[in-house]
Amino acid sequence: MSAREVTTTSVGIVGGGPAGLMLSHLLARRGIDSVVVDHRSRDEIEQTVRAGILEADSVRLLSETGVSERVLSEGDRHHGTYLAFGGQLHHIDFQELAGASVWLYPQTEVFVDLADARAAAGADVRFGVRDTSVHDVTGERPSIRFTDADGSAHEVRCRYLVGADGSHSLCRHAVPPAELRQYRKEYPFAWFGILCEAPKSAPELIYNHSDRGFALISQRTETTQRMYFQCDPDEDVDAWSDDRIWSELQARVGANGHRLEEGPITGKSVLRFRSNVVEPMRYGNMVLAGDAAHTVPPTGAKGLNLALADVRVLAETLERALADGDDEALDEYSRRALDRVWRSQHFSYWMTSMLHRPHGADEFDLRRQVAELRSVVRSTAGKTYLAEAYTGWPTR
Amino acid sequence: MSAREVTTTSVGIVGGGPAGLMLSHLLARRGIDSVVVDHRSRDEIEQTVRAGILEADSVRLLSETGVSERVLSEGDRHHGTYLAFGGQLHHIDFQELAGASVWLYPQTEVFVDLADARAAAGADVRFGVRDTSVHDVTGERPSIRFTDADGSAHEVRCRYLVGADGSHSLCRHAVPPAELRQYRKEYPFAWFGILCEAPKSAPELIYNHSDRGFALISQRTETTQRMYFQCDPDEDVDAWSDDRIWSELQARVGANGHRLEEGPITGKSVLRFRSNVVEPMRYGNMVLAGDAAHTVPPTGAKGLNLALADVRVLAETLERALADGDDEALDEYSRRALDRVWRSQHFSYWMTSMLHRPHGADEFDLRRQVAELRSVVRSTAGKTYLAEAYTGWPTR
Repeated sequence: MSAREVTTTSVGIVGGGPAGLMLSHLLARRGIDSVVVDHRSRDEIEQTVRAGILEADSVRLLSETGVSERVLSEGDRHHGTYLAFGGQLHHIDFQELAGASVWLYPQTEVFVDLADARAAAGADVRFGVRDTSVHDVTGERPSIRFTDADGSAHEVRCRYLVGADGSHSLCRHAVPPAELRQYRKEYPFAWFGILCEAPKSAPELIYNHSDRGFALISQRTETTQRMYFQCDPDEDVDAWSDDRIWSELQARVGANGHRLEEGPITGKSVLRFRSNVVEPMRYGNMVLAGDAAHTVPPTGAKGLNLALADVRVLAETLERALADGDDEALDEYSRRALDRVWRSQHFSYWMTSMLHRPHGADEFDLRRQVAELRSVVRSTAGKTYLAEAYTGWPTR
Repeated sequence: MSAREVTTTSVGIVGGGPAGLMLSHLLARRGIDSVVVDHRSRDEIEQTVRAGILEADSVRLLSETGVSERVLSEGDRHHGTYLAFGGQLHHIDFQELAGASVWLYPQTEVFVDLADARAAAGADVRFGVRDTSVHDVTGERPSIRFTDADGSAHEVRCRYLVGADGSHSLCRHAVPPAELRQYRKEYPFAWFGILCEAPKSAPELIYNHSDRGFALISQRTETTQRMYFQCDPDEDVDAWSDDRIWSELQARVGANGHRLEEGPITGKSVLRFRSNVVEPMRYGNMVLAGDAAHTVPPTGAKGLNLALADVRVLAETLERALADGDDEALDEYSRRALDRVWRSQHFSYWMTSMLHRPHGADEFDLRRQVAELRSVVRSTAGKTYLAEAYTGWPTR
């Protein structure tokens, strides 16, 4: 058995997605060293299709820390969005209402930008490791052990350990169950998502309510589009031919007078969604960030933004913890992050329940939903309340 | 068998509650004669404890038509309300946010004012009739037949017939079921309501969220208060001693740092609540108004206000129908009234679902509710959206 190579650093980060890499990047800017490990290869992460809406503050974070070149040049700034219901499209002008925009820029691209920036800075980021485990998380020297792609055994010893390792987080699973409260909500529906080769069907996202169920018309590029429609969680992807998909999507947006540009469908998948929160986001000298601590339904486009908001607060509090040996700063991280997490949970729930055909819906429910949507778009306050939440609340 | 005495009028109104009397009053001001019949006695109606919040436009309607002397002198103008959750009271300043107030003035008093005004004007309003039935509602001469308190048979022949006869409406039941769409929602909880002799516990209403369930702290006079707490629809009133009631109420408001002034409880009842809408609000030459066409949960305080909003539109459209023989005006009434009805249904549903402990609630639900309440009170837009709905939307 070969000896384990030991690396010492201030912050050990499990998870090299946007949350882990952004944290490493933010820490480096504060002069704090870190090591990031991920069991996935860079390629694997780059090939995962994920959400595509960045809040104003997420883009600001990328800008302020020098990784915004591509989002600002290649991303698509959206000044608003459409709510479609009751036979019509209604525009919500985020810029006018909340003084903020969002950017359409896929999460994968954020990952690429951060991975490139970290690589250029010579950061210690290790993709494709296996057999990862965390140790001594309540002690003064927590560590991450893993086997690298070459088969050699490693250990990263750190002062603080961060689990930014996604919804199946091994870090979260390393916490004794009694030490974390887990809150969950299952939703009785899912999204059928497609990628297609077609021109844009609208300049901004369309959140489409219809008696047949919700549809979201989104974009990727000038020639590639992303669309979703509400389906059963157990929907069989293979039961949906391209024709059937287009016919369903056209029926849903057609109810509100819209028509989609069609094209070959290059990807189909069913996205189940649920809400999940763990409290606190700290256990000993380990903290959780992003999907490791919470997942939201995709309707509010909050997942990635919440992860970036987490690490923005976390970088600041970790710096304090390291400088002063003040572990209390980690509790502050948990408190501040959870405030936004729960508001985002609510916003995602609200958008979901306002727009999706409820399980076992009757006509009362559908009419009440349309009345709510009408109340929102007829009121500047209602639209502003939605725009503020969609573009993101200020950091507290 | 004695002969039936026949009276001819322009508008025959079944139901002498606030909706029916206000309609008769508004029609009289437009020079249109009407007859109102109600199976209840004046005393009976005056002794029914009902809701107590008037929207700004409801008070404006009373003012503009000369029946506001008492509401303005004896009613209690509320510039806002309290939302209590997460350990604190939060004030929503309606006046500042929406430029409007509401008035605490019991529905019974509105009835008394309208009944007095109608009596003073020599209007034909007949309480305590029995065996009421409606006839020929699709014909040119619909009629109401009834037996008066003396036992003599009467018939009111009219051009248009109005069913303002409450949630059990005989007029609604006279419509063939296939001609009306009915939308219903049952809620899995009720309110336990009390009247008590005690000083005010707060200057304005408190909408109180707690893990134990919702409570509403309301007022009547300086010495009589009205309070409610969420309970099971099958709750047994007799199982609740005064001590037990006060202890439950104190626990609920105590969770948010408030304490109630106690006193002898003089009335106890369980109020079940449901949502109900019928469409259209017209059948032939008969229209429905107020509770006869729709009921809302009490949480949004919309019931009486919706009835008054109905008859405000109805008086205007009936005048047009009578002047031009334009029956289409009745369809316009239904359309315009239903727009507000559905928005009010949503608002009532929203307030209900935001504040009540959901059936089978888990910790996720309760935390999400608190996060929503926090989102509302932290955002001027959120508070304004609520204030606009609570104080009432403009008539369309």
